[in-house]
Amino acid sequence: MDVKQKALEEHEKWQGKIEVISRARLETPEDLSIAYTPGVAEPCLKISEDVDLSYKYTRRGNMVAVVTDGTAVLGLGDIGPEAGMPVMEGKCVLFKVFGGVDAFPLCVRSKEVDDIVETVAMLAGSFGGVNLEDISAPRCFEIERKLKERCDIPIFHDDQHGTAVVTTAAMLNALKLTGRKLSDIKVVTSGAGAAGIAIIKLLVSLGLKEVIMCDRSGAIYEGREGLNAEKQEMAKISNLQKKKGSLADMLVGADVFIGVSAPGTVTPEMVKTMAPNPILFPMANPVPEIMPELAKEAGAAVIGTGRSDFPNQINNVLAFPGIFRGTLDVRARDINDEMKVAAAYAIAGLIDEQDLNPDYIIPNPFDKRVAPAVAKAVAEAAKKTGVARI
Amino acid sequence: MDVKQKALEEHEKWQGKIEVISRARLETPEDLSIAYTPGVAEPCLKISEDVDLSYKYTRRGNMVAVVTDGTAVLGLGDIGPEAGMPVMEGKCVLFKVFGGVDAFPLCVRSKEVDDIVETVAMLAGSFGGVNLEDISAPRCFEIERKLKERCDIPIFHDDQHGTAVVTTAAMLNALKLTGRKLSDIKVVTSGAGAAGIAIIKLLVSLGLKEVIMCDRSGAIYEGREGLNAEKQEMAKISNLQKKKGSLADMLVGADVFIGVSAPGTVTPEMVKTMAPNPILFPMANPVPEIMPELAKEAGAAVIGTGRSDFPNQINNVLAFPGIFRGTLDVRARDINDEMKVAAAYAIAGLIDEQDLNPDYIIPNPFDKRVAPAVAKAVAEAAKKTGVARI
Repeated sequence: MDVKQKALEEHEKWQGKIEVISRARLETPEDLSIAYTPGVAEPCLKISEDVDLSYKYTRRGNMVAVVTDGTAVLGLGDIGPEAGMPVMEGKCVLFKVFGGVDAFPLCVRSKEVDDIVETVAMLAGSFGGVNLEDISAPRCFEIERKLKERCDIPIFHDDQHGTAVVTTAAMLNALKLTGRKLSDIKVVTSGAGAAGIAIIKLLVSLGLKEVIMCDRSGAIYEGREGLNAEKQEMAKISNLQKKKGSLADMLVGADVFIGVSAPGTVTPEMVKTMAPNPILFPMANPVPEIMPELAKEAGAAVIGTGRSDFPNQINNVLAFPGIFRGTLDVRARDINDEMKVAAAYAIAGLIDEQDLNPDYIIPNPFDKRVAPAVAKAVAEAAKKTGVARI
Repeated sequence: MDVKQKALEEHEKWQGKIEVISRARLETPEDLSIAYTPGVAEPCLKISEDVDLSYKYTRRGNMVAVVTDGTAVLGLGDIGPEAGMPVMEGKCVLFKVFGGVDAFPLCVRSKEVDDIVETVAMLAGSFGGVNLEDISAPRCFEIERKLKERCDIPIFHDDQHGTAVVTTAAMLNALKLTGRKLSDIKVVTSGAGAAGIAIIKLLVSLGLKEVIMCDRSGAIYEGREGLNAEKQEMAKISNLQKKKGSLADMLVGADVFIGVSAPGTVTPEMVKTMAPNPILFPMANPVPEIMPELAKEAGAAVIGTGRSDFPNQINNVLAFPGIFRGTLDVRARDINDEMKVAAAYAIAGLIDEQDLNPDYIIPNPFDKRVAPAVAKAVAEAAKKTGVARI
């Protein structure tokens, strides 16, 4: 049976991939008097005196909201909040299975930035953190920024920052393997949406100097007509020589290609014009910018994709469960750049030097060491940067 | 150890009374490809074509939001959204244990009617129903009314309608036991808030003719100064002779007392002025309007309270799990009066005539027959009245 048919059948059987269960025993009148009235009045009163005690007496300290408006679901685009729910439930399952984090999906029936911000802000007292998901760019940037201003709990847009962390982890090991330094290389992207921008911001913060981002119109440079605010901002820290031209033009001599765009945008001929032993991360899903076998034949030294059926799957599940685990463990009020960098190094560091090879630059999604290692590193970084609250 | 101390300790141990778990297996890359990408795209696409399929492919059809703003939590008053969470989590546990309904607590950080309405309306696509809880009157009436207008899923304010259903169930059996008919009796309430109003509305719909509601200022009558909109409405269908006076004045000759107010508002002397063999439901919690032993000594024939340590506990848990179970089972778009009445008769009907006695007019909260019987009756009533969608 093919995956599509099987997925439909399994989803129908599951009747939802998540379930809310009780952690309290409720078999006798006495149980009821402790978990509910009259006993429940006591934790209520304690929290009313000190709101922080909500982390002690309720599930808040382990509970994350997974929020979407359904405008950029997988590669399917704007399919609406209800139709986004299977993905959000799946995300919640990943949070639980990989990170031990309780996550609950909330699909918002509006595409207005302020509606989404208000809805989430109104509920911030019920959660320990918020994972934004599958919200279209550039709205996602504004929503994240406004929520960070409004809320006293960490806000994390996984399509940006989770992708950036995992891509950075793969990059660190790919550079090690090919004997390069981040400060010396030239990176070219295809795609300048939420993921592309977040990846480049994180790499630049780690020392990347030469980078050109391309969108459908080719290289992004300062002063190009019609750039949105985020691309304008990126134009200031990338393509400092203001080169104009196509993705093919830009790739000439590049050490690294990062693809977060569309199938087939890179040809073997383009790979051949890159620097010797180039690194390619064609991550478009399900069909990458260039198929790994073609890239390899054309000379690629290291290749990572978004797919599980090729080596080096650059999969967000390596990051977000551990990032939120660590964040919740120290009740961090934010997930800052230092925490993301710590997560990237923790993921990359799980592969010993002697094991590192072109087909193994990033751990497998089912590698059980990943989430605990990420959580530990993230919690430590939170403490060091003063955002940890316990 | 006393209940208060034990409740604190247990709540600390639980670290939240609810938990979100996975219903999908996730052990292999193939599992991941079915529950998440790429397989998950299929149910997403199906739902985008027909939103109703969200009930088939996601948890929506069994998921209820338990919503509060923390303004009227238990008898504690306005303690804030975070402090209301232990009660909301407890409610979710009751939904699950008694009704098999998944319920998730959402505590809204605003006391503005429109903020609460907007927040819930924005999330209506993620749930199969909404249970409003512990929202102060008269705001709760407006919030419920507006949400019913805005949302395509059932909205149910348990403090009103759950209480009304269970009180009506107790009343039906108490009347049977004392040989009375609803259309012949005189009822007096102490309390004209959310619960009192809903109880009287439901009883009037069933044929009650003579009723006087009292608040802190005494009898409510048409034209009394300072009545809010809801009390004005009640003044039109109650106290048709426009009697003025205190609760004590009104109780003279009354067959039934319904207390949803404050401890100690009824004295044995007042009971003695009521009709012979009066029925008393002093339901203030944890201390009733009159203690059962005092009411009995003063001549009460049947007494029901809100407490588990006396006979005849009039407890909402007898109603809401089964009501939502039945509502979700037929995907009803509303929970209407006919469904509430059906629930009340189902609860009352569980006690056989030969078992009926003054200490047993209503089933025990742990009676496992209750929720299925209520669910069945509610589902049938939904079908009869055309609000069932399957």
